[in-house]
Formats: sequence, structure tokens, C-alpha cells
Amino acid sequence: MSTPTRSHGQKSIRASAQPRDLMGEVNVRPDAWQASVVTLFPEAFPGVLGHSLTGTALKRGLWSLTTTDLRRYGIGKHRKVDDTPAGGGAGLVLRPDVVAAALHDARGPGPMIYLSPRGRPFDQAMARTLAAGPGVTLLCGRFEGVDQRVLDYFDMAEVSLGDFVLTGGEIAAQALLDATVRLIPGVIGNAASTEEESFSDGLLEHPQFTKPAEWLGHAIPEVLTSGDHGKVNAWRRAQSEALTRDRRPDLWAKHTNGT
Amino acid sequence: MSTPTRSHGQKSIRASAQPRDLMGEVNVRPDAWQASVVTLFPEAFPGVLGHSLTGTALKRGLWSLTTTDLRRYGIGKHRKVDDTPAGGGAGLVLRPDVVAAALHDARGPGPMIYLSPRGRPFDQAMARTLAAGPGVTLLCGRFEGVDQRVLDYFDMAEVSLGDFVLTGGEIAAQALLDATVRLIPGVIGNAASTEEESFSDGLLEHPQFTKPAEWLGHAIPEVLTSGDHGKVNAWRRAQSEALTRDRRPDLWAKHTNGT
Repeated sequence: MSTPTRSHGQKSIRASAQPRDLMGEVNVRPDAWQASVVTLFPEAFPGVLGHSLTGTALKRGLWSLTTTDLRRYGIGKHRKVDDTPAGGGAGLVLRPDVVAAALHDARGPGPMIYLSPRGRPFDQAMARTLAAGPGVTLLCGRFEGVDQRVLDYFDMAEVSLGDFVLTGGEIAAQALLDATVRLIPGVIGNAASTEEESFSDGLLEHPQFTKPAEWLGHAIPEVLTSGDHGKVNAWRRAQSEALTRDRRPDLWAKHTNGT
Repeated sequence: MSTPTRSHGQKSIRASAQPRDLMGEVNVRPDAWQASVVTLFPEAFPGVLGHSLTGTALKRGLWSLTTTDLRRYGIGKHRKVDDTPAGGGAGLVLRPDVVAAALHDARGPGPMIYLSPRGRPFDQAMARTLAAGPGVTLLCGRFEGVDQRVLDYFDMAEVSLGDFVLTGGEIAAQALLDATVRLIPGVIGNAASTEEESFSDGLLEHPQFTKPAEWLGHAIPEVLTSGDHGKVNAWRRAQSEALTRDRRPDLWAKHTNGT
């Protein structure tokens, strides 16, 4: 459990001159939320996270993002990171020694998570828990997976983005970070915005409408332009409930059991 | 439902000189799978999709990716795309007229999908269905959402990446495209690789091991080095079943009901 050290494979988004225009001078706050990502594709970061609210928050130093290039820890001239699966089968498996070396250097505060379709499904509650902590260290898999011994050694949590298979863990890592970072205090200006949205109370969000008042003959529902806040809230609540019941009986069952 | 036309807001990954090094000369096959994405952040594409297997397949013309910049359809000098929610509340809602104009231009073959936490959860079965079709048109939301009237007008399917809230639909779009594109014939060299993985038979994948045979005192499970394929398969199957039962009782219930 040593303090993470800066290593040859590591690149900090907050300090270095990156080809992407994200960076520049950033003063990371001492209490900034710290994300550390081990990946074979460090150039894919920050990606979407460098734009919009998460990008602004990164520039403001509300969170930091460090990538560790797994390839630099590879073996031999070709920096080999993987080998054939023991017992046979298609694809390649990431070697435990290579992954361990990268993780030793990359490790930051907070939990260590391996993104894998075998993991516990990521959800809004997990995002809230992570956002309340000091940060996260993420391992992005590729190929057929990662040698089980290194997952056991670090007692890594396995987290899945959903019941589908991705080429690698990079997009899953970005989704997890996006959902989490936006919950860090100060990232979204109006806190009410995260309180009203889907899943915050176990229901899907009601339909939204904006200008123009009439579009191609379709008007905004009358109640929304009535100015009667009580009626608006009741209508939205009813819409949320109907939508959840209709589209997500699983969520609806949880909601009605919980109240 | 007119044929999509090339518009001022559109940028094709397959044709234009992009600042990202993804592009160059690409001969898109006439039967290439076509992805079209409407977004406020076209520069975030192809992102991770430009790397690895999906990036190679894009260069080989096995699929194409077109982005349509929603901002270009915005209103007035400031290209306004959103306005306050009817009935009050936090955040901003994308205008139906602006979104419709972009979608009219962006529309390609295959279904139209709005990525939203209110949608049907994306899964491997949906990825397979999409991969078997001609392509997909994706709308990435931002802010509080999209005016419901434009979703109804185009009869868009709403698809959710999972029970969490993202800053916008861009990462969700990339996840959907990654999971789908890798199932297009020819994208992954070894087809067996997609047949053995998680969810292909409703079970989570068994643990994987590779070299070295012993690492920090931990050996690979003996059965995997026995050379007995029958035993290896039986062990893997038992591990898959135990893992699914333990971690995902919901999947396990579906699996045992289905067989």
C-alpha cells in the first residue's frame, strides 16, 4: 500500500502540455477529486470528458485526471502486455505482472475498479458514493480480459457499465467518470438540476417541453403554461410514475417497495 | 421522410480532412454499416472509437461515421439551441425546431435513437439487432433533455445506457456504437471471440489466466494446464454459472428459465 509514485508510464492531464486543447494552466485544488486510469489508449482521454461541464470542472481544478499507459509496462522489445489464455480459447489475456506494475504506480485515493461486463452494474447510487469519496483508480481491460490473479491481489471491485460487451474498458471508464464528476459539488451550477433528474428518487424523469409554444401544430401541454406550480408538479409526478411503470417495471417495483 | 441531404452542419468522418489522425483515404464499402450522430460536440467523435478494432474497421470502410453539429442549426446570432423548461425548473431543454432540422439532415438508414436515461436499457441483444441492420441515427441530448414533441414526431426509440445520469449522450452514443460495430462481420478477426464472451449465452464469462504460470506464489488453476479440453470446458462452465448466480441473480433467473 505504498504512496503512488510518478512513473515513466504516467501522464497527468493537469500538468503536462497535451496536444488536445484541454489543458493549459490549471490549479488543482488540494481537495480535488482524483481520477487515475490505466489504459492501452491514454490518447483517448479525456475525450468527451474534456468538453462541457466535466471539461470546465477539469480546467477549474475541481477534479484531476491522470492516465497510465499500460504499454510502457510491457515486456521485451515489443512491450508485450498480453498472452494466450491458459486452457486455450480465442483472444488474449492481459498479464498479471504487467498490470500489477502499472497499478502500483497508478494507484490513487479511493477504490480500485476493473471495468468488466462481469462486474456489478454501475448505477447512480454508485456514482454518488464515488463522488463523495476522494477519487478512483480505474483499470481498462482489452482483449479477452485480465488475469484473475491480479484482480484478486489488489482485491479490485469489478464494475460493469451494462449487459453488453465493449471493445475495451475506455468508454466504460469515461461513462463512470462523467456520471460521477458531475455530482462533485460545484461542477453543476444549479444543484437542483441533479435532484430532479432520473433515478434521483427512483423514477424516470417526466417529459420536457420548451419554446416554441406551438410547433407544427403541436402545443405544449396546457398545465405547463398555467402558472399553477402545484398543478405542474402533480402533472410531472404523474408522468414520471406512468413512464416508470410502463417502461421499467423493475424500477417501479423497487420504488413502490421502498416507499 | 426525404432522403438525407448533406448540409452545412454535417461532417463525414469518411470524407473530410479531420484534425484527428483517424481519417486519411478511406474507401467505404457500398454495404458499410452507417452511423450518424447529432451532437453539440462533434469534435468528441470518433474519440475512443477511432482506436483499436473499431478504429481499424472505420479505416477499412466496414462502417462509416457522420456527425451533425446541432449548434449549426441554432437560432439567431448566438445559434441558440435550447430554452427554459415550460412549467419551470432547473436547466435547459433542447428546442424541437432546432433538433428536427438537424435530424432531417442527419437521418441515415436504420432506426433513430435518442440516448436518454428514460429509455429502454441497452443490452447485447440490441447491439446484435443493430449490427444486423444497415445502421443507426443517434441523437445526443444535453441539459435537462429534449422537447418531447420532436421525439414523438420522429417516433424515436429512447435507449438508456444504464441507471445513471450522464452530462450528455455522447459517451452513451460511443458505447452503443462500440458494442454494435464490433459485432459487424469482419471487425473482429476471430468470430469465436464474440461467441464465448459474457452475455452470449446469458452467463458472465469465466475467469481468465495467462502467463506466467506462477506469479507471486499464485499458480494458474491446475485444470487449465492439464491439456484435457473436456475438463477445461466443464471447469469454465461451472465457473461461469457460479459467478452469474453469485453476482447477477437477475441474469441467472433468466438463464435458468430460458433453458
